Amino acid sequence: MKNIILRMKKLIILLAIFFSRSANAQQSDSLTIAKIYNQSLTNSECYPRLNYLCKNIGPRLSGSLNGEKAVEYVNQLCVEQKLDTNFLQPVTVPHWVRGEKEQAYYKINGKKSAVAICALGGSIATSKKGICAPVIEVHDFDELKALGREKIEGKIVFMNHPMKSSFVHTFDAYGEAAGFRWATAQNAAKYGAVGVVVRSMTLALDNNPHTGAMGYNDTIIKIPACAISTIGAEELSAAIKNNSQVEFYFRQSCEKFPDAQSYNVIGELKGDEKPEEIIVIGGHLDSWELGEGAHDDGAGCVQSIEVLRLFKTLNLKHERTLRAVLFMNEENGLRGGIKYDELAEQNNENHYAAIETDAGGFVPRGFGISDSTIYKYINEKAYLFRNYGWDKIDLGGGGADIGPLKNNCKALIGYVPDSQRYFDYHHTENDIFENVNERELHLGAAAITSLVWLLCNE
Amino acid sequence: MKNIILRMKKLIILLAIFFSRSANAQQSDSLTIAKIYNQSLTNSECYPRLNYLCKNIGPRLSGSLNGEKAVEYVNQLCVEQKLDTNFLQPVTVPHWVRGEKEQAYYKINGKKSAVAICALGGSIATSKKGICAPVIEVHDFDELKALGREKIEGKIVFMNHPMKSSFVHTFDAYGEAAGFRWATAQNAAKYGAVGVVVRSMTLALDNNPHTGAMGYNDTIIKIPACAISTIGAEELSAAIKNNSQVEFYFRQSCEKFPDAQSYNVIGELKGDEKPEEIIVIGGHLDSWELGEGAHDDGAGCVQSIEVLRLFKTLNLKHERTLRAVLFMNEENGLRGGIKYDELAEQNNENHYAAIETDAGGFVPRGFGISDSTIYKYINEKAYLFRNYGWDKIDLGGGGADIGPLKNNCKALIGYVPDSQRYFDYHHTENDIFENVNERELHLGAAAITSLVWLLCNE
Repeated sequence: MKNIILRMKKLIILLAIFFSRSANAQQSDSLTIAKIYNQSLTNSECYPRLNYLCKNIGPRLSGSLNGEKAVEYVNQLCVEQKLDTNFLQPVTVPHWVRGEKEQAYYKINGKKSAVAICALGGSIATSKKGICAPVIEVHDFDELKALGREKIEGKIVFMNHPMKSSFVHTFDAYGEAAGFRWATAQNAAKYGAVGVVVRSMTLALDNNPHTGAMGYNDTIIKIPACAISTIGAEELSAAIKNNSQVEFYFRQSCEKFPDAQSYNVIGELKGDEKPEEIIVIGGHLDSWELGEGAHDDGAGCVQSIEVLRLFKTLNLKHERTLRAVLFMNEENGLRGGIKYDELAEQNNENHYAAIETDAGGFVPRGFGISDSTIYKYINEKAYLFRNYGWDKIDLGGGGADIGPLKNNCKALIGYVPDSQRYFDYHHTENDIFENVNERELHLGAAAITSLVWLLCNE
Repeated sequence: MKNIILRMKKLIILLAIFFSRSANAQQSDSLTIAKIYNQSLTNSECYPRLNYLCKNIGPRLSGSLNGEKAVEYVNQLCVEQKLDTNFLQPVTVPHWVRGEKEQAYYKINGKKSAVAICALGGSIATSKKGICAPVIEVHDFDELKALGREKIEGKIVFMNHPMKSSFVHTFDAYGEAAGFRWATAQNAAKYGAVGVVVRSMTLALDNNPHTGAMGYNDTIIKIPACAISTIGAEELSAAIKNNSQVEFYFRQSCEKFPDAQSYNVIGELKGDEKPEEIIVIGGHLDSWELGEGAHDDGAGCVQSIEVLRLFKTLNLKHERTLRAVLFMNEENGLRGGIKYDELAEQNNENHYAAIETDAGGFVPRGFGISDSTIYKYINEKAYLFRNYGWDKIDLGGGGADIGPLKNNCKALIGYVPDSQRYFDYHHTENDIFENVNERELHLGAAAITSLVWLLCNE
């Protein structure tokens, strides 16, 4: 009997220790997260840094002078923050230049109506005078195929595939439609089209053409491709419905130059106990050149650096190594992400997690996590964030730049902010600093830092 | 034994019926919610109606001609929708007019620096020439009291109490600070102040003064009160720190007229099975006159009517009666809400729930519910909304207009959209149609309609 009582006592003591440790851990988590949020909301560096990146540097497509200025600027930020290490990773990047402002109109019986267009990224130029040809409207590749060479040859193909507003999450609508931006030129060229004009990838009805990458197939002739604003697309579509003969004219002078030298920028805080295990927090430095790359992805860049600043400023413990990676060339080549993975493999690095923030500087909703163990661990902690306005943890996630790392990293993680306004700005002249809300940006940095806090001491 | 087997069989059948009913209910809920969202996102009337309210009518303070135009417009919408009933409730409202654009500067050694101000709602005018007096800065009422008559008399009091950015939810920050807008004039007048200038209620640092209601105490002399932009407040505070003698000048010509006749607008769809049990969905028609009352509360008005339109268009079953109520005079008197409650009591009406949407046309986060039984019921259904981007159900909630109804209604419910940008626009010239995102507005209408669906057949 005595023995049993002793055993019971031991068990009670063990349970008490277990629960008090667990309670302490909880308290420590919630206190740390409160500290992170307080610092982020009252004393963040994100907003002024984004201001500098947008206004003093501006658009920064790979291979451009601004791209190099951006490398220099964020590298300087890493130096100023006295991180344990910071360095550049050389990356060879494509160098495409838009050239003069594009011109376009449609023409019915000699009457011209101007519409807003922009060249798609990677497109070839038209001739100097532009091209003018009968325009034919299609809505998907099946229609294009059904029309065939007989109906397509010598024409400009107008791909009018709207993003579907019925999707609640706008990235799902983008995912469904973006293939038409990428591949209409190569598909239409097969049937002898002389150019393509693609409806802009946005749910808004406005006058902003949205650029973005398109791709050629080396076995098929290259034809010029542009994007038309959604208002322009509606007008053009109505004109085609009401008239048997509509011609489309566009002129663009974009040009591809030889590959250029650029860099990923990396800053690091060494882990205390497991320094060989790396957690990447990254965004991409390059941006399309119509706007200022504010949401895409200046926001992600300043947030990634801010995570390390918050750890240092608040003196937060991190067993694992934290590495901010500012990738080059997400928009038109992904060379930075590919190079990062190559070097990680070559150097036999051990990546515990890689988090990408590249969905805009909007209010946080949650994270998508590729690894089921880490997903489970974070999902169990999600209650900690409910009062901060987010707690949605999904299994599955990542990001374009960290994608290539998937075989060399335990978990790929995508930061998921609210997506409703993203495609109002994405790849347009409206992606400017003024359209980023200070608090939303800072709440995002706090959410990512809090996640990293849970990951780096797990 | 046979008996036992028979009983077991019965039990199994009963369980099967129970679970299949429960599964059917779940499926029916999720299918209905999917329908509501699809209709809201692809075919909503909210956005064009808000456009009309903002651009063709505009600001609509109680007692103004625009206020009456707004009454007429939303009443017409109810008529067009062929609701079962629609009617006006006469309400006597205050009639305050801002007058000419306000002027202000601070003066150091004769050098004047202009700052952006606006009269607070309900304030008296200054003299025609304006008033100029030494300015003294305080941060709260304790400081005011400590300075006392000796330091305050003959001066203009500058209440520089910033909203605290450390609050995650901006309404908490507003709640902490808004009392200084309301009561600085009456508190400062006690000590002989001749005017007050109050820091605007916003977390943004910008040049927009924010108006809003202030109140006098009938036993204390009335002095004029204005709001200064946050940039102006920072400048004025710095000037006071650096100089022993700073004067402040402001001129405003606002005026109070006799009470005017106005109306609450009501539209109704009778319930099928419990028509005597009413569910109110409401917002307020009146708005401050610096902007267009887009977020505050044009959004809530068009959403409230949209709920009924969606029920009718989608032919959704509703056991209880649905009543859209467009309240008049939330901003400076709450007379519409008070009158509605008076009449509900007088007519012995049975209100099951009243939902207010008056926190802006932003993306949905959840609802606050005052009644614990209904809270529990909705909270158990919250999982249905997770994939639509919201599921936060809090115990406790309501709204200004429905507040007076609290003793005559089972549950007061507040719609809670994301709050981060609300105080960037609130009560300023920036509260315009262009600052409402179409999808965010429509997602809000879908969320409210979905909640009403669960409530009206519970």
